[in-house]
Amino acid sequence: MIEAYALENLPEIRPGDDLAALLRPLAPLRSTDVLCVAHKVVSKAEGRVVDLASVVPGERAREWAAAWDKDPRAVQVVLDESADVVRADGGRMICRTPHGFVCANAGVDLSNAGAPGRVVLLPLDPDASARALRAALRCAVVITDSFGRPWRIGQAEVAIGCAGLAPLEDPRGGLDRDGRELQATHVAVADQAASAADLARVKAAGQPAVRLRGLERHVLDHDGPGAAALVRARADDLF
Amino acid sequence: MIEAYALENLPEIRPGDDLAALLRPLAPLRSTDVLCVAHKVVSKAEGRVVDLASVVPGERAREWAAAWDKDPRAVQVVLDESADVVRADGGRMICRTPHGFVCANAGVDLSNAGAPGRVVLLPLDPDASARALRAALRCAVVITDSFGRPWRIGQAEVAIGCAGLAPLEDPRGGLDRDGRELQATHVAVADQAASAADLARVKAAGQPAVRLRGLERHVLDHDGPGAAALVRARADDLF
Repeated sequence: MIEAYALENLPEIRPGDDLAALLRPLAPLRSTDVLCVAHKVVSKAEGRVVDLASVVPGERAREWAAAWDKDPRAVQVVLDESADVVRADGGRMICRTPHGFVCANAGVDLSNAGAPGRVVLLPLDPDASARALRAALRCAVVITDSFGRPWRIGQAEVAIGCAGLAPLEDPRGGLDRDGRELQATHVAVADQAASAADLARVKAAGQPAVRLRGLERHVLDHDGPGAAALVRARADDLF
Repeated sequence: MIEAYALENLPEIRPGDDLAALLRPLAPLRSTDVLCVAHKVVSKAEGRVVDLASVVPGERAREWAAAWDKDPRAVQVVLDESADVVRADGGRMICRTPHGFVCANAGVDLSNAGAPGRVVLLPLDPDASARALRAALRCAVVITDSFGRPWRIGQAEVAIGCAGLAPLEDPRGGLDRDGRELQATHVAVADQAASAADLARVKAAGQPAVRLRGLERHVLDHDGPGAAALVRARADDLF
């Protein structure tokens, strides 16, 4: 049995806030719990917020913004946060971040930034953010973001940071019920945890943190490899 | 609060079995529950199983199988189940199925087929399968499969059929906490439900069905558009 419970009444987070201290009183946490936290509050606490008034767009940002009717300063921030742009078409920018994540707008988010004219970036090192929260809260932690997917409509929440949870389950080498070896079926446990948590919260109601219970078999007694283990090497990717 | 509970003791499914009748005694189901069922048992009940001994591989299948050290009959089945092959490299075949799903091997699965030498196909019309189960069980139903993802390691369970559950949540037009319109953030509710369910089951232990409770706000009083609504139109896809 898995239980997903959305923590309530987290205040608006500001740069420099001690996020763990603000989360701790909202729900009892066991060492076998997995706390999934939407990156936006992590990013805000870490000061990963940009005031668009401070951004000077370059030529490429101005061209794309003109073609797509976007704010050239927002386009510039996306370019600044991108290691490369995988696809750019019709106003959609699919970017690879320095972490290796491939997602729209390099994860830069215009909504709920805390004030108009501000955008929220991804944490610089979401696995480190997860490790710090795990150390403070003494439970497994997943930092999440919602990514679009090729070929499918709609966004699904995935893990961009992870500590204390095995991000992947590898049943290879095990036998299926017919006694044959299971095919290559790594399960993306941390991504599925992020998605399960997302179902339990109401985004606009300010519920960025969800406690998952029942994942004991995936919980580690150490930080583990983090969500970095979920990033496919470019040489090994078909897309 | 969301609860995911894996049903236990479903027997091995054979072609022609009444799957709903076998599922019904395993757990109480409310009209607001969402029963997630791994497609493999649906496919088996529907007779979507192929005996490889009956397959005559064509030239393309023989060539690819020789290059990749695969069973040419299995490659032929994959080609038969594909509308087109999106990528084929190093033994990996990423195919678009007639339903529009893009996944490895067109969803053809070699493991747990019930007997060696048999492969399991996707249901012909998984939304129809979901509707039939919903009618019989009187709860929302999601038919699931595990798909790999570009750029990310590991598989995540997604919805390939759906009835009685809104596959997408569209908060657009709503306002975020700063009073700005939420950006284009359709949430793939049915895919996330599939992933949440997958966390609760142990695949090799034969737990293909998981009951989700707490998704009332996404449950419909009719079948709804099905998982077909999750398939992005080719013209609208960047990949």
